[in-house]
Order: sequence, then structure tokens, then C-alpha cells
Amino acid sequence: MTEFGFIHSIRERFADLPDHHFEGIGDDCAILPISADESLLFTTDMLVEDIHFLRHATSAEELGHKSLAVNISDVAAMGARPVASLLSLSLPRDATESWAEEFMKGYHALSKRYGVALVGGDTTSAKEKITISVTAIGRVENRCIKRRRDAQAGDLLFAGAPLGASGSGLEDILAGELNTPNARTHRTPEPQIAEGVWLGQRSEVHAMMDISDGIASDVTHIMEESGVGCEISLEKIPVAEGSTLRTALCGGEEYKLLFTVSPESARALCDDYRKRFAAEIYPIGRITSGGGLRWLREGREEHLDWHGYTHY
Amino acid sequence: MTEFGFIHSIRERFADLPDHHFEGIGDDCAILPISADESLLFTTDMLVEDIHFLRHATSAEELGHKSLAVNISDVAAMGARPVASLLSLSLPRDATESWAEEFMKGYHALSKRYGVALVGGDTTSAKEKITISVTAIGRVENRCIKRRRDAQAGDLLFAGAPLGASGSGLEDILAGELNTPNARTHRTPEPQIAEGVWLGQRSEVHAMMDISDGIASDVTHIMEESGVGCEISLEKIPVAEGSTLRTALCGGEEYKLLFTVSPESARALCDDYRKRFAAEIYPIGRITSGGGLRWLREGREEHLDWHGYTHY
Repeated sequence: MTEFGFIHSIRERFADLPDHHFEGIGDDCAILPISADESLLFTTDMLVEDIHFLRHATSAEELGHKSLAVNISDVAAMGARPVASLLSLSLPRDATESWAEEFMKGYHALSKRYGVALVGGDTTSAKEKITISVTAIGRVENRCIKRRRDAQAGDLLFAGAPLGASGSGLEDILAGELNTPNARTHRTPEPQIAEGVWLGQRSEVHAMMDISDGIASDVTHIMEESGVGCEISLEKIPVAEGSTLRTALCGGEEYKLLFTVSPESARALCDDYRKRFAAEIYPIGRITSGGGLRWLREGREEHLDWHGYTHY
Repeated sequence: MTEFGFIHSIRERFADLPDHHFEGIGDDCAILPISADESLLFTTDMLVEDIHFLRHATSAEELGHKSLAVNISDVAAMGARPVASLLSLSLPRDATESWAEEFMKGYHALSKRYGVALVGGDTTSAKEKITISVTAIGRVENRCIKRRRDAQAGDLLFAGAPLGASGSGLEDILAGELNTPNARTHRTPEPQIAEGVWLGQRSEVHAMMDISDGIASDVTHIMEESGVGCEISLEKIPVAEGSTLRTALCGGEEYKLLFTVSPESARALCDDYRKRFAAEIYPIGRITSGGGLRWLREGREEHLDWHGYTHY
């Protein structure tokens, strides 16, 4: 069974339980309204040695950064501010005390940058491999929450940054080139936290998520949840320096934003974003009322059999 | 560095971060007030193969039960109702699809018993060992929250049930006797969820926690957080069938309640508890204004060098 198949079977099995006002699985985070105005968001991710990282190819400090980054990325991708995390660490004997201290140094630096409190956790030993599990908690005004299900036919599809750096960095690491700029990006991704919170406040932004498995895979979640199709223009994909179009589309662990925007407001949004962040957002396609996912090159359809991302 | 040493160093490192109204580490759960009347509680625990369980000595279904049980035990031990969980699973290739299905069967059955929604999670592969991480969320009226720091000199110390079954079960398992009643208790602990919620509503109950590392270790947390001492009467310890006094005091993973009660209300509490649950609670000692932890036998001090629990 695939991961998605397993998640689907879990969803069905747990459908008979009370929801206690939580919005179910389907977005980057679970949502719990706590008043008429505000909600809390919850997400969790596990990083496993030799699956998500190779111990010889990343420093403990980098891994501390990344463990929190991938989680708060999910929070900001729904328009929320990350406020707290819980961290569990399972460490074998050969991950020394100084390894753990370095890990916490990286985790703390990113926590401090975004003001994320550490409110709980667990530390245990392990026989051989390091495992890290983080749960992040976000807080957001209800009117600012962005869900995958809110894309509308006619919306423009945007990428929040050039893509492919992380994927190409992984290729570098696997080739033994640990010190390229993209390899560093792969080990210490910079999620778009302030950008996600800012976009959350813009009503012309409809659906939003972060890119963790590659656009080619992730956009299908917006399509499924919103019941829409999508056309993506290959020549408009912003490819990061040192990467390729294919990696920009299929590489995972980008942790950049993917979102849809009401077409009449798109230009003003781009202008305001540029003023606020001194950076661009990239229109790469269009939401359609149906027709699945279509790849276009200069307006003509191309058939790609590129798939999403798999880890080590 | 010990686990407690590492947690202490983390506490210090993160003291410079905003708390966003979360109450810091020090109880079974972190606390976030969401209104003048109510709070949410958060806790997380990781279970690691060959550290917390042996795959050949537990069924997947039992492990699904236990993974949730240990987390909702922490929630109820503060007087809160568990409302939701997030579950992350890291599974090697030899943990098959049917293993995962059986795990979810056990996890679901306990979720259903207490009405705990599953609101998020992560599934990943692993090279060799299974790792499970659960975050549980509780909801509670502020006036019902029980903390470790609220014990008062003169309080009676209570155990919520006979102790030692889980610890003796672990001894059975390690001796190859997998099918004793205590071995089953060790694999499928029954936390005192309804009992914790009920005790939360009683104002004469002051400090409360669950017993996860053995009374001999856990009571010191109440003492440290409350700035009090404690006398425990060895002859009053309720020893579970097939266990011993030493295991009842030092065995871990009991997931039974440990709490302090205003002495003038203790008898009425015992009577009401018996009416509600058809079971006993056990006065085992007394909180003192100082003097550390003292073990008494028939009123005379004994020196024990028994320590808390360690896993496999």
C-alpha cells in the first residue's frame, strides 16, 4: 500500500469518531477553531536517518534547523503564524551529547527567528538510527486560513519562489558533493514563513500549500480537494540556479509556497508582494473547471510522465 | 548526560523565546489557555523498537493501543479529556501492510473508547526499526487543571490503583513468558482516563500526575515542582497481583494516577470515588513541608536505594 493509500484507509477507519470541532485530514495542518475569530493549527512530521537524511552528509545543527523548518512550513502554508513546537528525539549511543547539543542549537536558532516556543517533547535512546518527530502549532485568524479546497476555476497558480534548488542539492549530496549551494539549501531549507502569513491576510489568495513532494505531485492535492483541473506552463516555471526544469517540477522538500489567486487581483498582489519582500512570486499556470493536470509549452500540450519525489 | 539533564539544558536554552501564553515544561502536558474558562493540553511520546517494545513479544494491535494509551494517560493525569491525537509511524519493509492495519486497529479501538479524534500524522519508511510518535491534545476547564506544583504540606498522597503489574509483566516478557496476565497488562496498559477527568473536577485534589517511571522516581517531580517533601508508608502500597513491593515502587509504565488530597476531604473523596468507579484509591503517604523523600514501615524510617525504571 502507498502512503496515500494507507492514509486513505486511516481516514475511513476513523470516520466514526467525534471530531471535537477539528477539521479533518486533507490540508497541511489540522484546524481547531478556538473562538469565532481564531483557530489553532497542528501538523507533525517525522525525520528518519537514512530515509530523510544521511548522518555523514548533514551536521546536527543543520538537522535541527530542518526538523523545525519542515513543520513550520506547513503552518505558514495555511496562512498561520507558528507559535509552538513539541520535539521528540530518539538517539543511538553513537549520537553523542555534543551531537544533541548541536542539534538543539540549530533547532533553537530557527525557533528564535520566528518566535516559536518549545513546549514539550520526549527524548529516548535507540539501537542504531536517529529519529526526530516534531509537532508544530500555529495560530491564525479564521478569515486568514488558506485551505487546499478553495481553488476556483479561473484562478492563477503561483509559485512563491524559484524551484529545484533542494532537489538538485540532493543530487549533489548523492554524488558526494556536499558543499554546493544547492546541497546546503537541501540541508537547511528556508520555508516562507513571513510570506505565508502575509499571503494569508490577502483575500484574493484562495488555496495555498507548501511544496514538499514536488509541484507535479502537490498540485494534484489542490485539484482533488477543490474539484478542479489545472494547466501549468512549462516555460513559466522559475528554475533555481543550478537546477533543471525537471527537478524544479519533481524535486521535493522545496518548502516554498504554491497558491492560487483571483485573476483580477493578481497584478496588485505581485506589486504589493514585491514591495513587502523585495522578491517575486511566479504565475505558472491556471486553475480550470476540469480536465485534470495538463502541461503546456507555449500554449501547446505536452505529455510528461514525470513523477513526484521520493526520499533516499 | 541523562534525559533529565538534557531536558534541563533545553529549558535553559529556550528561556529567551516568547511563550505565546503556553505554560512551560514541568508537567505531563503543556498548557495553552484558549479562553477565561478553558485550556488545551499537549503532550508527546515516542516509542522505539527494541527500546520500548520488542516486536516478537507484542502484537501490532497491542502496540497501537499502547502508543495512544501512554499519551492520553498524560492528558487525563492533569484532569483533562483527551480529544485528539496526531500519529507518526516509521515502518521498515518487514513491517508489512497487515502489520500496519493491525496497529491501526488497536489505535482505533482505544481512540473510539475515549472519543479521541485522529487529526493528523505522518507515515515514512525506515531501514530496520519501527518508531512511533504520538502527540495527544486534551481540553479542560481551567479550574480543573491539576499540576505537579500544587501539592501542599499535609496533603495525603494517593495511588489510583494497585501497582506493579506492568513492571512484573516486563519481567515475565524478558523471561520469555509472554502470556501471563501481567505481561498482557504491560503490553496493553489501561490508563485512568475517566478517573483522571473525574478527579480533575474535585477541588480537594491538588497535585496529580501519572506513574510512568515508578513512584520512587515520579513522586520526586511533585516534590520538586511543589517545593515539598514526602513520606511514603511501605505497608500501604497496593501491590498488584503477581507483583512485588519493589516492582510496585520502581516498575515503570504503570499509567496509573498519583495525586495529593487535602486531608480533611480524603474520606469523602474515597467514598465518592468508590460509588462512581466501584474501585478504590489508596492513601500511601503524606506530603511534608520539607525533608526530602522518606520511606516508612509502620511509622519507622527505612533506607531504600531503589531507583526508578529503565526500559529494555
